[in-house]
Amino acid sequence: MSFISSSNLHSSYSNMALEGSKVKFGILDCAEIGRKLARAITLAPNSDLCAVASRSVEKAKNYAIKNGFPSTSKVYGSYEQLLDDPDIDVVYVPLPTSLHLEWAVKVAEKKKHLLLEKPVALNVDEFDVIVKACEDNGVQFMDGTMWMHNPRTLKMREFLDDSEKFGELRSVHSIFTFTAEDDFLKNDIRVKPDLDALGALGDVGWYCIRSILWAANYELPKTVTAIRGPIFHDSGVILACGASLQWEDGKVATFQASFLTNLTMDVTALGTKGTLHLHDFVIPFQETSASFTVASKSGFEELVTGWVPVPSEHIVPTDLPQEARMVKEFSSLVTRINESGSKPETKWPIISRKKQLVLDAVKASIDQGFETVDI
Amino acid sequence: MSFISSSNLHSSYSNMALEGSKVKFGILDCAEIGRKLARAITLAPNSDLCAVASRSVEKAKNYAIKNGFPSTSKVYGSYEQLLDDPDIDVVYVPLPTSLHLEWAVKVAEKKKHLLLEKPVALNVDEFDVIVKACEDNGVQFMDGTMWMHNPRTLKMREFLDDSEKFGELRSVHSIFTFTAEDDFLKNDIRVKPDLDALGALGDVGWYCIRSILWAANYELPKTVTAIRGPIFHDSGVILACGASLQWEDGKVATFQASFLTNLTMDVTALGTKGTLHLHDFVIPFQETSASFTVASKSGFEELVTGWVPVPSEHIVPTDLPQEARMVKEFSSLVTRINESGSKPETKWPIISRKKQLVLDAVKASIDQGFETVDI
Repeated sequence: MSFISSSNLHSSYSNMALEGSKVKFGILDCAEIGRKLARAITLAPNSDLCAVASRSVEKAKNYAIKNGFPSTSKVYGSYEQLLDDPDIDVVYVPLPTSLHLEWAVKVAEKKKHLLLEKPVALNVDEFDVIVKACEDNGVQFMDGTMWMHNPRTLKMREFLDDSEKFGELRSVHSIFTFTAEDDFLKNDIRVKPDLDALGALGDVGWYCIRSILWAANYELPKTVTAIRGPIFHDSGVILACGASLQWEDGKVATFQASFLTNLTMDVTALGTKGTLHLHDFVIPFQETSASFTVASKSGFEELVTGWVPVPSEHIVPTDLPQEARMVKEFSSLVTRINESGSKPETKWPIISRKKQLVLDAVKASIDQGFETVDI
Repeated sequence: MSFISSSNLHSSYSNMALEGSKVKFGILDCAEIGRKLARAITLAPNSDLCAVASRSVEKAKNYAIKNGFPSTSKVYGSYEQLLDDPDIDVVYVPLPTSLHLEWAVKVAEKKKHLLLEKPVALNVDEFDVIVKACEDNGVQFMDGTMWMHNPRTLKMREFLDDSEKFGELRSVHSIFTFTAEDDFLKNDIRVKPDLDALGALGDVGWYCIRSILWAANYELPKTVTAIRGPIFHDSGVILACGASLQWEDGKVATFQASFLTNLTMDVTALGTKGTLHLHDFVIPFQETSASFTVASKSGFEELVTGWVPVPSEHIVPTDLPQEARMVKEFSSLVTRINESGSKPETKWPIISRKKQLVLDAVKASIDQGFETVDI
């Protein structure tokens, strides 16, 4: 079967690895986000885009054609067929959250490595079943949080770890919102209680929680308190919410997640000596480089007429789009397991689980009338 | 008595009004912030810096000399003497908050117009006494919130009022923090329960609350809930705190105020169609112009590889420093009262009172174990 490449979307980055060493990816279902991952797999030098499955073979075929899959790609009319394909190393699962438990476990049981879209599960109990299936079958787990893999994230980490420039983290404030169209508010899986029951908390809130935990070096907060005034869809799904998080040592964090306000993606981290700001933490404004602003030991001019020093912007170029770097990192882990027989990297499921714990606590606080919930 | 101008601090702006029409200011006490106001009064074209009072005439004289007071300025060794000076039209009061009730009322009773440093009072009951004294004596009241008078503030207001570009306000997030030095944490009036009992809430938190109310067009929230985890000085004064605010129509806001993290001054306002960001809302990075960033109907490139459009920065020059514009505005109101016998402008005490109400609610919520407090 041969496909026509849909565009020159893949032309700006070159794929330099040797064919023989590439990790083979299959995509489970024709989700919109999977189109971005398909490109990312093609761009990652150690990865091959090999198959897509849908409940309809026609749908899978059209998806492959429209999204520039290589002509050698296979298309399947059922998820099971893809999982049974012995050539596939990794399955990327962008299914609605309510289907994660079933299909993520099946992927692991078929000894396929699992790249799972977020939110990883409806709650931590479900997630623990998924992680156990991965452990029992020796397969790698990672969630699809692309911004973690942007080189900017490493540079920001260096700043937060700098005891002289940033000092000690004291508070983090994260915002991720976008204005959903009418069609989204009627038909998107993220407003359907039987598909993505966590709504804006599971979608954009997931990223806010990730950014907060990232800034806190994945130290879990002690308590979580939802902010009063969340907004609900008629279906009961959360459309907008916020929460505050409190740590044992006095650190605090807040976040705001919404489908009802203009696209905004802020992280603000306040240290005893420095401040970090960025406004595009999930999706950088441009693909080829990303920036952040830092301030350190900020003070005032005589008579407080201005700042000394003023904050400075740092621009970090990237060799590959952040999602292709994610795929590349995942494939490296898979290659290491396959070639050396080593155990999967546990860092990624541990981070995902912490996020899920906080997310569950926010949900519980909302459900319990904004009571403070212990973690 | 003649003073030597201390520096060229006043040289970059010209004072163009006719001598005869100028409003005459006296400063009550030799506070650090008063140095900035002294310059502002000198720069405001309709205002004259005429006197300063301290409990020691030597201290007042040194302050006048060091801060470039005009050679015609009078120096007084008691507050009462300044209040008894028939030449003084306006008294600027930068005393510690606990002294506001006594001295603000005395200023009004002496028929002097009152420019009062923030926080205006320890609570709204005290503030109401001050406002009543101003009303009874027909004098103008304004608090010293300088950023309100920056031309940038008007431009930002235009954006927030633009139903096409910004839409409807849904949330506001404000941060004002600075890292206090050891000396501040030991000796500053803002950590003394008998002087500025409201600590970081009254100092930096006051500005956060102002920015939130400003964004909400001074519509009062329905409820206020302090965020868990405030940090207290050994003296009991608040060193760091935050709160969330909720409005009847579903709007929410959060703020973070602290003496314990690097200088940061953020306002983020989220509308259904647009986003406003600024990082220097209280004191602009530079004195001669100030900027803010707006985004409107933000979306993504194909495959979510970047933003379309990206946010844009707007730079607003200023003819005078914001504090000189504040003085000029105040003097204009005083001149109108003096020349036409009109009543004082009530907008300013109304705004100050709303801020005090919210501040009192945050304090009450903290004192009541983070219970939600109705306004």
